[in-house]
Amino acid sequence: MLKLYDLAGAEDARRFSPYCWRARMALAHKGLEVETIPWRFTEKERIAPSGQGRVPVLVDGDKWIADSWTIANYLEDKYPDRPTLFGGPAGRALTRFYVGWADAALHAGIIRIVMLDIWRHVHPRDRDYFRKSREERFGKSLEAVVADREKFLPAFRDSLTPLRLVLKAQPFLGGDQPLQADYVVFGSFQWARCISDFELLSPEDPIHAWRGRILDLHGGLARKALAAA
Amino acid sequence: MLKLYDLAGAEDARRFSPYCWRARMALAHKGLEVETIPWRFTEKERIAPSGQGRVPVLVDGDKWIADSWTIANYLEDKYPDRPTLFGGPAGRALTRFYVGWADAALHAGIIRIVMLDIWRHVHPRDRDYFRKSREERFGKSLEAVVADREKFLPAFRDSLTPLRLVLKAQPFLGGDQPLQADYVVFGSFQWARCISDFELLSPEDPIHAWRGRILDLHGGLARKALAAA
Repeated sequence: MLKLYDLAGAEDARRFSPYCWRARMALAHKGLEVETIPWRFTEKERIAPSGQGRVPVLVDGDKWIADSWTIANYLEDKYPDRPTLFGGPAGRALTRFYVGWADAALHAGIIRIVMLDIWRHVHPRDRDYFRKSREERFGKSLEAVVADREKFLPAFRDSLTPLRLVLKAQPFLGGDQPLQADYVVFGSFQWARCISDFELLSPEDPIHAWRGRILDLHGGLARKALAAA
Repeated sequence: MLKLYDLAGAEDARRFSPYCWRARMALAHKGLEVETIPWRFTEKERIAPSGQGRVPVLVDGDKWIADSWTIANYLEDKYPDRPTLFGGPAGRALTRFYVGWADAALHAGIIRIVMLDIWRHVHPRDRDYFRKSREERFGKSLEAVVADREKFLPAFRDSLTPLRLVLKAQPFLGGDQPLQADYVVFGSFQWARCISDFELLSPEDPIHAWRGRILDLHGGLARKALAAA
């Protein structure tokens, strides 16, 4: 069976990486069973055969495939007759921008809200690593990163306008059906959901309804996951 | 022949609407000839048959079609055998987010840089309308909107990271060939180019090279347009 190294928190069941969620949703979309293996930030050696130190890592027989974008492409190419993740070559090319937007813009906003919550939920042996590496990157304490999160919330919600404009017009980013673009962006919200009880979205927001639709997909895979709220 | 009402500035040849450029590039991509008709902000009555007061408006026989997104969809549906703008239904759905991002995020940045330059280039009879409507919307003078533009430039360029990540990996947003998604985003840069000599992009930026590739498309349609620099 396929295996996926999947970032876990203090509990084995707390799976909170946005990138791992992109891969898990892609696997579910393709109808593929997978054994997920809980993995912690400091366990670099366990995924060394992938040639790098981050998850998700998919293991398919003797192949080790790292990076959620590479994994989605691998699945699309290996299983072309299963439900498509991209809807063709143009859709595949057009999906890259969603990755860029989620990684650069969306995550920059979410992290200012949930940074300290992540630290609370990571495995105790990951806590020092997490705090040190993030405080170096941000040049301030985790507490300082999120200190103004209530005040920042309106600006964060404003930054989601591009997404909101789409989801007012169609049920999924992929149109009538979800595609990998949906999972890319959803992964970021699922990340927050799994480690923070802070509500990023107002209930009236079309993005809120879209998130609910994705939570229900594939037998409620994402909804059933251990969440923080 | 097809006709397109196209926003013009002080000179008939100065065509600077980002939305009109989306439509013009879509028409060129489909290999369609079009007569463009210079139009000014205050000439609402000339496009009244379209049922609204903004350009672009495409006139195809007795059909008046407003809105660049509607126009692109109209052209794709009417000319399915000409080069595709979307690359299929998934690509079409996935292109909406580019519209949302350009309209909400990209324009919000560009306007803080070129607002006063627009005013300088609009038709003298549009100047009062433009200043009044924009100063009301922004709650400050046009001069104040752009006062800190040099200081704002690094943040603006940072906001383009999602685009930059894609264009490091592939020549066009549509992949190996341009699609409507490219024209949507390009329209915003062409808007700036036509009314401002302020350089938004550094020469080393992959976005700069991509803009150059689009300027050269379709016989250099966009490059030949009257620019401000």
